[in-house]
Amino acid sequence: MKFHHQKLRRFTQSLFEAMGCPSADAEVVADVLIAAELRGIPSHGLMRVKDYYAMVKAERINTSPQVRATYETPSTATVDGDNALGPVAAKKSMQIAIEKAKVAGTGWVATNNSNHYGIAGYYSMMALEHDMIGISLTNANPLVAPTYSAERLLGTNPIAVAIPTQNEPPFIADFATTPIARGKLAIKSKLGESVPIGLVQDKEGSPSSNPGILEQGGAILTLGGGGVDLGGHKGYCMTALVDIFSSVLSGANFGPFVPPQVAYLPLLEQSVGKGLGHFFGAIRIDAFRPAVEFKKSMDTWIHTFRTSKSADFANPVQIPGDNERKTETAYLKDGVPVISKIFDELCEIADALNVEQL
Amino acid sequence: MKFHHQKLRRFTQSLFEAMGCPSADAEVVADVLIAAELRGIPSHGLMRVKDYYAMVKAERINTSPQVRATYETPSTATVDGDNALGPVAAKKSMQIAIEKAKVAGTGWVATNNSNHYGIAGYYSMMALEHDMIGISLTNANPLVAPTYSAERLLGTNPIAVAIPTQNEPPFIADFATTPIARGKLAIKSKLGESVPIGLVQDKEGSPSSNPGILEQGGAILTLGGGGVDLGGHKGYCMTALVDIFSSVLSGANFGPFVPPQVAYLPLLEQSVGKGLGHFFGAIRIDAFRPAVEFKKSMDTWIHTFRTSKSADFANPVQIPGDNERKTETAYLKDGVPVISKIFDELCEIADALNVEQL
Repeated sequence: MKFHHQKLRRFTQSLFEAMGCPSADAEVVADVLIAAELRGIPSHGLMRVKDYYAMVKAERINTSPQVRATYETPSTATVDGDNALGPVAAKKSMQIAIEKAKVAGTGWVATNNSNHYGIAGYYSMMALEHDMIGISLTNANPLVAPTYSAERLLGTNPIAVAIPTQNEPPFIADFATTPIARGKLAIKSKLGESVPIGLVQDKEGSPSSNPGILEQGGAILTLGGGGVDLGGHKGYCMTALVDIFSSVLSGANFGPFVPPQVAYLPLLEQSVGKGLGHFFGAIRIDAFRPAVEFKKSMDTWIHTFRTSKSADFANPVQIPGDNERKTETAYLKDGVPVISKIFDELCEIADALNVEQL
Repeated sequence: MKFHHQKLRRFTQSLFEAMGCPSADAEVVADVLIAAELRGIPSHGLMRVKDYYAMVKAERINTSPQVRATYETPSTATVDGDNALGPVAAKKSMQIAIEKAKVAGTGWVATNNSNHYGIAGYYSMMALEHDMIGISLTNANPLVAPTYSAERLLGTNPIAVAIPTQNEPPFIADFATTPIARGKLAIKSKLGESVPIGLVQDKEGSPSSNPGILEQGGAILTLGGGGVDLGGHKGYCMTALVDIFSSVLSGANFGPFVPPQVAYLPLLEQSVGKGLGHFFGAIRIDAFRPAVEFKKSMDTWIHTFRTSKSADFANPVQIPGDNERKTETAYLKDGVPVISKIFDELCEIADALNVEQL
């Protein structure tokens, strides 16, 4: 079934209000989750309401947080997320980065004591209307083995970068630094399909084509796969850098110590910081060159790449963000599809919280 | 044969002085090239003297440049490299980033009108003694096809990030964003070996195992390989971001318009900016949290990863920078090996420039 995005947003906001969130915070969470749905990333959309609710019920998330900067310089801030729902801590953090950039040219915020923040791209895109480049990084639960390791020490740690343009749509890269996301493996596993070598390994660290191997102690590989032959060590560098910027700089938990973001997993015994961590950047374009000049140059960059010769007529060369924009355009017009399993979950939660049904 | 690094550095400096560089600039170029040799990256070391010399002789590089900031905000600067040898423009740019960071918390410099700058890691490591994280990016000659493209539109665009530590050696990631570098393909090609699928494609964009395919119009693939099955589109995002930060932000040439860095290739007909571009960052750690706290936490991060269970006893889990540091320790003690082909090239150049032989 399909719903108008505004209806979904208002309904989702009501759920979080009923969980005890102030109205403004509930609105932020709803907006981030519906943005994921609109961009065709349902794994970070309404599917998360159930997990967030379970975390709130278990009192593992603070619904009345005071998200605030605890330390500042002209171009930086460290933000204490006060164990908020991730989107609440993250949006405030990115707003601070943007304000810093207005004065100092760039703004950089490391956030600790936060939780799962939804799609990384949401926060990077906040910079666009200010003629700024937006950057958003987060660490995540450990599912990924560094090169040569048999252990899960890193998350699928995404990087999002949004870059303004003049007439072309903006360049919006938003990607897990690993070759595949957990959600896609789960789908392959349910379908009984295998996956190519280079995505996962078993618990001993041997190559595997079993998408269900994570349930058996296996791990996702870094971008470039296992070992170094196809550059897996470079993927390890990228995923590690996102972890370090998000956690060691902010004072959050790094790598294997990131607290579980689902209530059915117990809290970890060892902690090396506060909560989960993010890192945000805002770069004022005219801190380097006139904004119009830059944006026209981006248009030329995009045109050059988009019109390059494709290896395959079925797949023209794309610009990061193309796919998500196409989906968003369609869903804004025709409504957002919600699969029945998720619809049922939302109905149950609405029932439990005494919120009017969707 | 092996030489003491100081002897190599002085000799290299003499060569660049004889080419017309001021003594201070010649010293910088020599230091960057010898740093590459010491770190076991000879493809970016003395091998480049011949190319740099040919570019100088062809008057395609300015040996008396005025490298200067043309625009500034508290945390940023745009630097005009004045067509200098890359290391001269890059070192000055990174120094400006570090000075900005001392006051504003972070410093970010986009450099245009530059040339090949050697190893990216050199500039990122300059930040370490200031208790800063150092970042260094550059674009490079187009050899890489974006996902689905049959054309070479991007360079092997490296990322270097150096992160301070307390008692552990620093974390130093310095890697081309592609799965393999051009130099390594050339070696495989000379040995008559093939390479695994996932590194290169032919001129039509079909997978290839021929390491010599670049000479036939082929291209290097992005990290994650061709297509999207193993995440090649994420590698495309990374390589594209390095290009955009280095060139569109600075006003240098992007992607396919990066000027050739060897004199035997003609200048390109079309230009979309000035020279080749770099991007540098310096992040003062205590702009986020007390430096000692951060550095101790980095030690814990490194210890956690280094002592994790390896999938293979022959290959323990490594920390970025481990390999290069081992090589450097050995070469500082025992001397730097120089292969006879490079030695002969250097002798010829010394002869031509009337410089005392090595």
